[in-house]
Amino acid sequence: MTESTDTPGTDGKPGYAADKAAVRTRLRRVEGQVRGIQRMVEEDTYCIDVLTQISAVNRALESVALALLDDHLHHCVSHAISSGDNADEKLDEATAAIRRLVRS
Amino acid sequence: MTESTDTPGTDGKPGYAADKAAVRTRLRRVEGQVRGIQRMVEEDTYCIDVLTQISAVNRALESVALALLDDHLHHCVSHAISSGDNADEKLDEATAAIRRLVRS
Amino acid sequence: MTESTDTPGTDGKPGYAADKAAVRTRLRRVEGQVRGIQRMVEEDTYCIDVLTQISAVNRALESVALALLDDHLHHCVSHAISSGDNADEKLDEATAAIRRLVRS
Amino acid sequence: MTESTDTPGTDGKPGYAADKAAVRTRLRRVEGQVRGIQRMVEEDTYCIDVLTQISAVNRALESVALALLDDHLHHCVSHAISSGDNADEKLDEATAAIRRLVRS
Repeated sequence: MTESTDTPGTDGKPGYAADKAAVRTRLRRVEGQVRGIQRMVEEDTYCIDVLTQISAVNRALESVALALLDDHLHHCVSHAISSGDNADEKLDEATAAIRRLVRS
Repeated sequence: MTESTDTPGTDGKPGYAADKAAVRTRLRRVEGQVRGIQRMVEEDTYCIDVLTQISAVNRALESVALALLDDHLHHCVSHAISSGDNADEKLDEATAAIRRLVRS
Repeated sequence: MTESTDTPGTDGKPGYAADKAAVRTRLRRVEGQVRGIQRMVEEDTYCIDVLTQISAVNRALESVALALLDDHLHHCVSHAISSGDNADEKLDEATAAIRRLVRS
Repeated sequence: MTESTDTPGTDGKPGYAADKAAVRTRLRRVEGQVRGIQRMVEEDTYCIDVLTQISAVNRALESVALALLDDHLHHCVSHAISSGDNADEKLDEATAAIRRLVRS
C-alpha cells in the first residue's frame, strides 16, 4: 500500500464518502464482468470476444478511478490546501496517482 | 459481443487453449483484487490507496490481454494466413482489438 | 481550445512559468524526434523500429503533460482553492484534463 | 533501435510502403502541432489548453502507430507466415511492439 499522507476531507472520511454506494456498485459490476470473462475462457470463447470484454472492464475501472480522483481533489486535496495542512505532499501524492493511472 | 470471424486455430480451439489454466488463474486473481478494492472502499480506505490498487488491476488485466493477443496471433491469425482462410478479415479484426486495448 | 477558467496562479502567469524553459526544451526534443521518425519513414525503415520510436515519443509527451499537470495543481488550482476563486470549476477542469490524458 | 528481424514484405519494402505519403503527411502535421504547443508555452497559454493539445497529439500519434501496425501485420507478418520465414520471431516482435504501444 502507498505510504500516504492519509488525512482525508474535513470530516475524517475519504473524499468518495458521499459516493460510496455508487463506487461499490460499479466495482461489484466489474467483479461480475471479470467472472464473466472467466466463463468465456472456460467455454473456449473466441479470443477477440474475450479481448473485447477485457477492454470494456479496463475502461470501466478507469472511470471508477477518475471519479475517485475527482472526489479526492474536491475534498482531501481542497481541504489540505485551504487548511494549509501538508498541501504540497497531498498534491505530489495526487500527481503520482495520476501518473500511475496514465501509465496503467 | 464483436461479430467475429470466429474460426480459431487449426484444432478449432481458441488460440489460448494451451494457456487456458494460466489465463483463468490470472483472471481469478484479478477478481479477488476487485473484491479487495470493494472492501477498501467499504472500510473508508484513503482514496490514493484505492487508486493505487485500481491501477494495479488495470495493469494485470492488460497483461492478460497482451498474452491472449499473442496467442491469437500465433494460432488463429497464423492459421488463417497459412490456410488462406479469410486472412485479411482476421488481421483487420486483430488490429481493431489492438486499437480497443490501446484506447482503453 | 477548451473553454477554460483561465485564471492562472497568483501572479497571473501559468502554473508552468517557473519551468517554462525546461518544458520548451522537452517539446523541442519531441519535435526533433517526430522529424526523425519522418526520416525513418522516408528511408523505408522497418515498421517495428518506427513503432518503437513512436512509443518513445508518446511517453515523452506524457511526461511533459504530467509535469504541466503537477505545476497546474500546485499553482493555479491551489490558488483558486486558497482564494476561493471558482475553485470547483478549476477542479472539474483539472479532472477533465486528466481524463483526456488517461484516454489518449 | 530494436534489434529486429528486419525482413519486410515480399518486395523488400516496409509494410507501410503503399501508405508512405499518408504516413509522412500525418507525421508532418504532428510535428506542426508540437511546434504549436511550444508557441503556446512561449505565450504563457493557460495550462489546461496546453494539456488539451498534448492529448490531441498523443491520440494522433497513436493513430499513426495503429495504421503502421495494421500495415505491418498485413504485409511483413503475413509474408513471414505464408513463407515460413521466421514467422514466430516476427509474431513475437509484433506483440512486443503492441505492448510498448499499450503501455505508452
